[in-house]
Amino acid sequence: MEPQDIELLRVLNRHRSIRKYTKEKIAPELMNQLLETACRTSNTGNMQAYGIVVTTDDGLKKRLSPAHFNQPMVVEAAAVLTFCADFNRFTKWCRQRKADPGYDNLQSFLTSAIDALIAAQTFCIAAESQGLGICYLGTATYNAEAIIDILNLPELVVPITTVTVGYPEETSEQTDRLPPNAVVHREQYADFTPETIDELYREKEQSDFYAKFVTENNKETIAQVFTDVRYPRKNNELFSDKYLEVLKQQGFLK
Amino acid sequence: MEPQDIELLRVLNRHRSIRKYTKEKIAPELMNQLLETACRTSNTGNMQAYGIVVTTDDGLKKRLSPAHFNQPMVVEAAAVLTFCADFNRFTKWCRQRKADPGYDNLQSFLTSAIDALIAAQTFCIAAESQGLGICYLGTATYNAEAIIDILNLPELVVPITTVTVGYPEETSEQTDRLPPNAVVHREQYADFTPETIDELYREKEQSDFYAKFVTENNKETIAQVFTDVRYPRKNNELFSDKYLEVLKQQGFLK
Repeated sequence: MEPQDIELLRVLNRHRSIRKYTKEKIAPELMNQLLETACRTSNTGNMQAYGIVVTTDDGLKKRLSPAHFNQPMVVEAAAVLTFCADFNRFTKWCRQRKADPGYDNLQSFLTSAIDALIAAQTFCIAAESQGLGICYLGTATYNAEAIIDILNLPELVVPITTVTVGYPEETSEQTDRLPPNAVVHREQYADFTPETIDELYREKEQSDFYAKFVTENNKETIAQVFTDVRYPRKNNELFSDKYLEVLKQQGFLK
Repeated sequence: MEPQDIELLRVLNRHRSIRKYTKEKIAPELMNQLLETACRTSNTGNMQAYGIVVTTDDGLKKRLSPAHFNQPMVVEAAAVLTFCADFNRFTKWCRQRKADPGYDNLQSFLTSAIDALIAAQTFCIAAESQGLGICYLGTATYNAEAIIDILNLPELVVPITTVTVGYPEETSEQTDRLPPNAVVHREQYADFTPETIDELYREKEQSDFYAKFVTENNKETIAQVFTDVRYPRKNNELFSDKYLEVLKQQGFLK
């Protein structure tokens, strides 16, 4: 490998989510360059059926904040990017060109959501390579209807993820990862036995960081912190119903 | 900017999908490194609720080929990576740790699909930075049930995208992109007027490449090639129904 190639992997490998930002703005030329790079990436059939709303205005960021459960980075980051599945522009173009667009369905939503996410990650990597820090907010799919309202998203446009971006104030530790074979399967999927589950989670379960995480949450196991506190069934089911409503409302389930 | 930072943007900006590969295999050390880099990326709550099936076996690639409409790169690429929404491992771990997992719903599917796609794009960028070429196959969501069968995907595992990867045999032209303001909205979403649609599509509609594309398909407009030939309503609706069935069958819509 050439030194520059190793360096590129190093940028990817040093990733950590950044939740604290300095007050420094992002120069418009840099932001434009990052957005152009994001738009250069892979997309389905070159339809570019996705949209990116870049919000930097303090008033709008404040209005978006509750939709993201008031996580402080929404107000503090230089920019909040809402990546959307978007068949609106393409559909309008088809109608103006004597063509019958059939993109008001689940598969078209998935296609455009996939493209939005590929663009999002390309944006994030481009931003990180330039010394910026990013954080994904999963709340975009929890409170999509509030975001739609604040950002004026029309029919066939639905938020799929939000990214905050700015200059890092913190140098946080990298979070742990499971051994690669928790995620990677060779040739076909090798399902997990109780023994492999024990093995894959051993390091996590022996770490001081997670021991504290369990105690602080008054739970018996790390898994219970996830199922009872962080991602409980009742929230997942509530947000499922809400997102399904949003998909209908925005015209993706006709 | 440091030279290495400019270099990374250059890698991102030179992206093109590669559909023809040499017979050269990918060294296992390199593949492992790329997969580790993919697993280092952002994910929701550090649950790592996604899976990557790496298929290199000729027999299996041949079996996967019809699910991808026999696109030749499935058989010819050194490796076929199937990125999956995967709450199977996490759910099994919860059950072994006295925790009640509530991840059999639409929101959890979305969460894991988002994470799978972020990992997919990180893999692709890492691969491209090392001289490999990639191509995304949208067919993963069209014929998910066949892929599930061939790769033995258990409950709570669903393919969301497929990537072929190998050493490029072709040096294809970069495809065109719409002007950035077709995708990027400032502050809030600015909906498109008939005039802005005309303006955004003008360059595409004046190009010789697309003129040929229209003639070859016996259509009147570029948009008609998309709506009548490439992504027609009846296919989108058929694949919507099929994918909905798959989500139910794999336990994501309980």
